[in-house]
This record gives sequence, C-alpha cells and structure tokens, in this order.
Amino acid sequence: MTTFTKPALVLDEDRARRNIARMAARARRFGVRFRPHFKTHQSREVGRIFREFGVDAITVSSVEMASYFVDDGWADVLIAFPLNILEAAEIARLAARCRLGLLVESADGLPALARAVPVPVDVWIKINVGANRAGAEWNDRALLAAIAREAGRHPELRLRGLLTHNGRTYAARTTAALFRVHADAMKKMLKARNALAASGYPGLEVSVGDTPACSRLDDFAGADEIRPGNFVLNDVTQLELRTCGARDVAAAVACPVVSTHPARNEAVIYGGAIHLSKDDFRLDGNGRIYGRVCRPRGNGWGPILPATAVTAISQEHGIVKTTSAEMRRIRAGDILFVLPAHSCLTVNLWDHYVKLDGSRVSTIREISS
Amino acid sequence: MTTFTKPALVLDEDRARRNIARMAARARRFGVRFRPHFKTHQSREVGRIFREFGVDAITVSSVEMASYFVDDGWADVLIAFPLNILEAAEIARLAARCRLGLLVESADGLPALARAVPVPVDVWIKINVGANRAGAEWNDRALLAAIAREAGRHPELRLRGLLTHNGRTYAARTTAALFRVHADAMKKMLKARNALAASGYPGLEVSVGDTPACSRLDDFAGADEIRPGNFVLNDVTQLELRTCGARDVAAAVACPVVSTHPARNEAVIYGGAIHLSKDDFRLDGNGRIYGRVCRPRGNGWGPILPATAVTAISQEHGIVKTTSAEMRRIRAGDILFVLPAHSCLTVNLWDHYVKLDGSRVSTIREISS
Repeated sequence: MTTFTKPALVLDEDRARRNIARMAARARRFGVRFRPHFKTHQSREVGRIFREFGVDAITVSSVEMASYFVDDGWADVLIAFPLNILEAAEIARLAARCRLGLLVESADGLPALARAVPVPVDVWIKINVGANRAGAEWNDRALLAAIAREAGRHPELRLRGLLTHNGRTYAARTTAALFRVHADAMKKMLKARNALAASGYPGLEVSVGDTPACSRLDDFAGADEIRPGNFVLNDVTQLELRTCGARDVAAAVACPVVSTHPARNEAVIYGGAIHLSKDDFRLDGNGRIYGRVCRPRGNGWGPILPATAVTAISQEHGIVKTTSAEMRRIRAGDILFVLPAHSCLTVNLWDHYVKLDGSRVSTIREISS
Repeated sequence: MTTFTKPALVLDEDRARRNIARMAARARRFGVRFRPHFKTHQSREVGRIFREFGVDAITVSSVEMASYFVDDGWADVLIAFPLNILEAAEIARLAARCRLGLLVESADGLPALARAVPVPVDVWIKINVGANRAGAEWNDRALLAAIAREAGRHPELRLRGLLTHNGRTYAARTTAALFRVHADAMKKMLKARNALAASGYPGLEVSVGDTPACSRLDDFAGADEIRPGNFVLNDVTQLELRTCGARDVAAAVACPVVSTHPARNEAVIYGGAIHLSKDDFRLDGNGRIYGRVCRPRGNGWGPILPATAVTAISQEHGIVKTTSAEMRRIRAGDILFVLPAHSCLTVNLWDHYVKLDGSRVSTIREISS
C-alpha cells in the first residue's frame, strides 16, 4: 500500500471504470447519447477511460474546462453553464477547435455570440423544470420561441435542443420520490419541445441527466442524451440516496489521525475543508455529515465503519465521531479513508489523484497552474 | 478598472495593510507578541506587508505552509495544528531552517519527535477551553503534567507554553457574549498555566487569539501572544459578528452575471462553490448566506447592496437574491463583487489574487503546483 503521511485524494480506478461501464450500458439500453459531465473527475486521464466505452461527446462546466479537454482530443463538447458573453473571445477560439455547444436562457446574448464565433456553434436552451437555479421556464412559450427566433437569424447559431439539470432529484429520499420528480421533469421537457415544434421549430433534441435518476430509473423515453457526472466517483450523497453501493465509491481522501478523544468517542484527523470541501449531506433530522470513514484494506480502503462519520470540519481539521468499540482501535498515526459528502467539490481541491498502485493522475489544476 | 471576464479573487491591498496596522497596534497596546496566522491569506507577498509592522513570528496550519513561508525568510514559525508524526521527516527538515513551534495534546508523539529533529523545537500544549475540536482538557492536570514531564526528558524539546483557539467566539452574536466566552477562555488558560507551574513547570507562555476577540476586546492580561488570522481580509462572518466594518473587508470575488430572473428577484452569477467555497454564515433564524454583494466602484467595489446576498451555491453557479429595486439595475454581463462568508476557505481555492491595479499576487497554490 502507498504510504501516506498527509492527506491525499485516492482514486480506485477499477471502480471508476466499472461505474463508467455500467452507465454506458444504461445509456445504450435507453437508446440515448451518453454525454457524461466531466466536472466531477476533472482529469484527462480519467476522461480517457470513457473512450473505452465509445463515449465521444462530453459535458463540462466552464470554458476553461472545455479547453482543457479539447487539448486532449475531445471534439464534441457542451458547456453546461449559462452563456457568459464576457468570455466571447475564448468561446470563439474554442469553437474553431471542436463542435461546441452553449447554453442560453434568453435571446440577449445571441447576437454578440453570433458576431464572435468563426464557425457555427450548437445552441441549447436551458430549461427550468422546478429546481429554480437557472433556465427559461419550461412553460414560457413566448420566451422559448423568442430564443429560437433569434437563433434562427444567425447562420452561426444552430439551435440544437432543450436541456435541463433536474437538481430536485437530490432532495428525493425515496425511489418513489425520485421517480416522481424525474417523471415530472421529463413531462415538462417534452411539452416544451412540442410547444417549440408547434411554433415552427421542430426536431429539437432533449438533454437531461443527473446521477440519481440516471443511476436508478429506466424511463428516458423522449430524451436524446443524458449527462450524469457524479456517478464516475460517487460519494456519500449517492450512498445516502441509495443510488450506489459502498463498493461503487471510487474516490476517498486518506487522512492521518492526529489525536483521539475517547471520552467523547472522537478522533481528530488531518483532513478538513481544504481537503474534503465544506459540502455536507443533511441526514434526516440528525445533523450534517462531511464524510463516511473506512480503514485501509489491501491497496485501498475497506467497508464503511458503522455509526461513524466526519461530523465537523474546519480548515485543516476533521472530527470523526464514532462508537466506543471503533474508538478503541483508532490511534494517532493511523490512516483513515474518508468518503466525501460530494466528490465533485472534493476533487476540485486537488491537483492530482493517487491511484491504488501509487501512481499519480493529474487534474485540471495541475495542468493549468 | 481591471476588466474581468470570469471569476477572480480581488485583493484591496490598502485595506489589508490598514487591517494589519490596526491589529499590530492592538497587540502593542496589549503588550503581547503578535504572531498572525497566515492560513488566511496564504501569500508570501501579503505576508511581507506584516514585516512593515515589525512582525517576525508567524502561525501556519500545515508543514507545507510552514515550508512555503520559511522559503521567504520567516524564521519563527508555529504550526498550529496537532503534531502529525507521520510527517516527522519533513518536520525535521523544517526544524533545521527556522525556530519551529509544534502543537501536542498528548505525550504520545514526543519521543518520536525528539528522535527525528536535528535541533531543539518549541513544544506548545494545545488546550481545549470548550470548543471541543482538539486539545487536552484545560483542567486535566495529570495529562498536562505528563506532557510536560515527557517533553522534559528530551533535550530536543523545549516546552514553551499553552495554546488555544477559542472557536466559540464565532458563535457569540453579541459583544457581551463575546466578552463572556473570551474571559472564560483566558481564565481557563491561566489556571492551566498555574497548575503546571505548581507541578514544577513554571514560566510557560500563553498563546490565544481568534479574530473576533482580538478585533473587539481589550483584556488580554496574562497572554504572551495573540494569533488572529482572518482580520487581514475579514469577510461576511466578521461583518455579521460586527468585528469589522464593510470597508475593512479586503478581499472579494468578481463574478459575471450570466442571467437574471426578475420574477423571483434573482440573478445567476458565474461564481460558485469552486470560487467562494461552500462555507456559509448562518443568519439568526433566517437561513444561510454565502456572501454579500457589491457593485464595482473605482478600481474596487462599493458599498454592500441592501437586502442582497448569495443565497444558494452550486459548483459554478451562485444565486444572488435581491430586492426588486436592485434587480432592475442588474444585467447579464455585469460584474458583481461577492464578499465571501469565510475568506480563509475562499482564498484557499485560488492560485493568485488580482490587486486593484490589475497586478497579480501569487498564493501557495501557484508556487507549489
């Protein structure tokens, strides 16, 4: 096993590959394009695993991330973040290098975008189906038609489809609730597509996809592509939502134990907000946790310790709350593996992963610095 | 003004210098050593400003951060994090290069530490005065004496003093409450020192210091040094605790507006958890906020917009909730400045600041990658 002396982000590549294989098979079964979101792993090397499963179209969350993956040969890239027209120059450079997709939720930025890009780009209309983060309202037919009309005025803009991120699935704590919010989103997306067809804009695609729905549900009728991201690594949030099992979590942070407090069944780990992020999972009526905890096993980590979690976190410290039975086995100088609450934000803090064989996998942070 | 096209961490150096001058003057008035915590700004260039005010001893939160500042000439460095004996080799290298202080809360690691270091190091006993994060209990006389006794066996270990971080001041929402938790901590620290003196270990120093107490209170009788960190930049937490004013906040994140939703008085900014961190401030009975919002003014930012805050955050998106009056003045393509909830964690996400004159100041992330 790799010898860790300070916190490290550890990647179980076999698990990541299995997660990718499973989702690629699901997409084939649904008959939809698999356009995975790469904001979770943020690594060219992890991205290349997807190619083994026939993936050739990807989703990213920023212009910078698009550029990072285009440099590694990705040729069909969707930036699933509202168009930031202040970056028109960078977008124009990218458009010349790949099939680029952009997201809009009003017609405002389209003339400036059309003037900037040297070749046609795909335009997706971001639809709000109820998460109320961003997007045009799914039933605002006038707005949807106005965007389509404006796009139609510019040969540089190809109106390609409607896209949503149904973030409400993360609040669905039962399969029945997950099914309901997913079915609701699909229904609204198809109504919005039909409304645009009736307004004279037929043939638009529908892009959906969050990890909970894509991991658990089977009805994607009407969708043309899915864009899950988190599934490649999974995390405590997916575990608690039961959209993955403990052996599907492919990333953990190795943390040294620096002190123990048996009187309160707590250990202090070197592993805090700058290693895990401050994101948490809200337990039903029972506080927030920042991670689940495992012991080392083989070259990786073993099962999740029962009734044990990272319950508090500051800049460099984490507090592991456990049982008195587990407490007796924890010593300063031990390494514990923490499965993070939200793997996307954890990975974002690191410039590389350490694989189970000890080799290093860089992320966008290592390259761009 | 600098033209921002995507999120950027902006430093108002004049404000930072004024904050440093004020805290240095307070430390002189209290008659204590000023050993500022550099985990907030994480920048050699910002660190050098402290030298203008006679500071020659600093606090850091990791071995790596100690090394980064020692490389810039700092010669008296305290790592205010529980000793991680797995890093003994790195600690030994550092000890040869500066006067190094280390924190322990049990006697366990001391023999290994003594074997590792080539020259004597300072040992501080971390004391828990009620925050219950880490530390030996302030009234556990047997434990304190056992640590002192073990340290005394090794000529490589100089028992220097008792140290606490009284994090409870961050929960004190009134000056009276702040005074109470601070007075309680000082009382416990002095009792612990007296107990050790009675056990045969006289002359130990007392190190305290969190930004709320050091910014607002005046009674540090009995303390030998203070270690505030956050005050150099301040943030929404300090603002809400009234330990600084709006013009004392020296760092903000410039964020493009990418869409507006007037029906719900919300704007979506390009500025999310990867730019601000997921840390929040809990308003009294009224949810959590991730930042306050200002418009550009001059080369920096102006007053805080009334009844406006970043109320939700995801990986790249922030939601600014505002009033209908402010909403009418916000357009996609505008830049808004977000004062973060917690500047330490925000700075940690960036490899450089942009100063108001447009020049760049690197952080530890830029150097170490």
